[in-house]
Amino acid sequence: MHSLQFTDESSSNGMVERDFTMGDVPGVLWSPASGTGRAPLVLMGHGGGAHKKHPAMTGRARLLVNGCGFHVAVIDAPGHGDRPRSAHDEREIAELRTAQAAGEPEGPIVVRYNARLAEIAVPEWQAALDALQRLPEIGAEGPVGYIGIGLGTAIGVPLVANEPRITAAVFGMHWPDALIETAKRITVPIEFDVQWDNERIPREGSLALFDAFASKEKTLHANAGTHFELPRFEADSAARFLARHLDRAVAPPA
Amino acid sequence: MHSLQFTDESSSNGMVERDFTMGDVPGVLWSPASGTGRAPLVLMGHGGGAHKKHPAMTGRARLLVNGCGFHVAVIDAPGHGDRPRSAHDEREIAELRTAQAAGEPEGPIVVRYNARLAEIAVPEWQAALDALQRLPEIGAEGPVGYIGIGLGTAIGVPLVANEPRITAAVFGMHWPDALIETAKRITVPIEFDVQWDNERIPREGSLALFDAFASKEKTLHANAGTHFELPRFEADSAARFLARHLDRAVAPPA
Repeated sequence: MHSLQFTDESSSNGMVERDFTMGDVPGVLWSPASGTGRAPLVLMGHGGGAHKKHPAMTGRARLLVNGCGFHVAVIDAPGHGDRPRSAHDEREIAELRTAQAAGEPEGPIVVRYNARLAEIAVPEWQAALDALQRLPEIGAEGPVGYIGIGLGTAIGVPLVANEPRITAAVFGMHWPDALIETAKRITVPIEFDVQWDNERIPREGSLALFDAFASKEKTLHANAGTHFELPRFEADSAARFLARHLDRAVAPPA
Repeated sequence: MHSLQFTDESSSNGMVERDFTMGDVPGVLWSPASGTGRAPLVLMGHGGGAHKKHPAMTGRARLLVNGCGFHVAVIDAPGHGDRPRSAHDEREIAELRTAQAAGEPEGPIVVRYNARLAEIAVPEWQAALDALQRLPEIGAEGPVGYIGIGLGTAIGVPLVANEPRITAAVFGMHWPDALIETAKRITVPIEFDVQWDNERIPREGSLALFDAFASKEKTLHANAGTHFELPRFEADSAARFLARHLDRAVAPPA
């Protein structure tokens, strides 16, 4: 059992940023600067080729910490951010770049590679959740949400399916192939983002993945635009979704 | 040119309610009790079998008036609310009830009937908009939005397609058949509500109608559930959508 070691701390605009390591896995925990009581925790999965402090992560963290009073944690996915790439990572990335340069379909490579990353990342996330819940400002009883798009969905779907502590999740923007069967085991409320004119992920596949979730409450948000044009207002919407599902169950301070 | 005659006025919870007639068409205008300056106008189309003061209308009006500071107007559709039914209305409704009782498809009857209602209602809405914009608290320069689900979409799609004064619209929950070609002429931002497990309107048809809008910004919100289970949070989302598109352009008081 790895415990969480804080390695750096800074603060700006009402948000405390604490870098941590958990064994070999680096992460970051953002928290309200003003908060002393317990608050819900949101786990955030970054996208493929990105990392724990990518602007898409810090921007969402600001909405969730300052807007909702949540704690927000991100860990680098295997081969991403401050983590070394394995020989397998290098081979897969080279194959992806070759396919992209040749105008060949990238889907099969991304699906296979992300599925492998998820196998490694899911137990890392579960260990991180164990460690985060030992912090007094989070605790083991509070509600936990998850948000991750792209690679964050490839890792998040098996994580949420296997982790009963996570009670609401935001997903989107991933090929369905390796995820459909796992999605059928998820019953917690879901918000699912799709780009209607996605040039990389076929529309039918995205709709099939949304359809697969067994959740009684699930909402598809499909916006006009291509893969990288996901509107900023969907980050606001995701924060409101998580606030609706996590906020009411905030545990009082012990 | 009919002018708008106010027939009754009351006030509760920060909202002024004014009944009006415009020729033979009865309507209602809700406004902020506190407002003296000009504010944007939202036209709201009620659902089939409902009327201008149906709880779905008053509930949305409260969000739009109290939450956003908008004026909100609804007129009774032909054959609805305080308006008499024509022999044609009676025949169509009888045919619809017969089909429903026999478990036969209602779609073809509703599509045909609503298309006829829209032919009558669109010029009525345009005259109402003319009259409403002559009120000093609305004015001819301010932004105008539209929101209507079901019959409100059957009327709203041709209205918005033919009415350049309307610059943002919320639609949803209608068969595509009579609307697809008209939707292709709409370019303003759209939010479109779909029930994913709609037992009356086929999913493919709803997606085809969303696909048809030529709008550069359009968002599909599809929620798990049957036809009458549209979640209440979609009314909040619609209000935010209209606030985003209308609020910034509020004209200063003349």
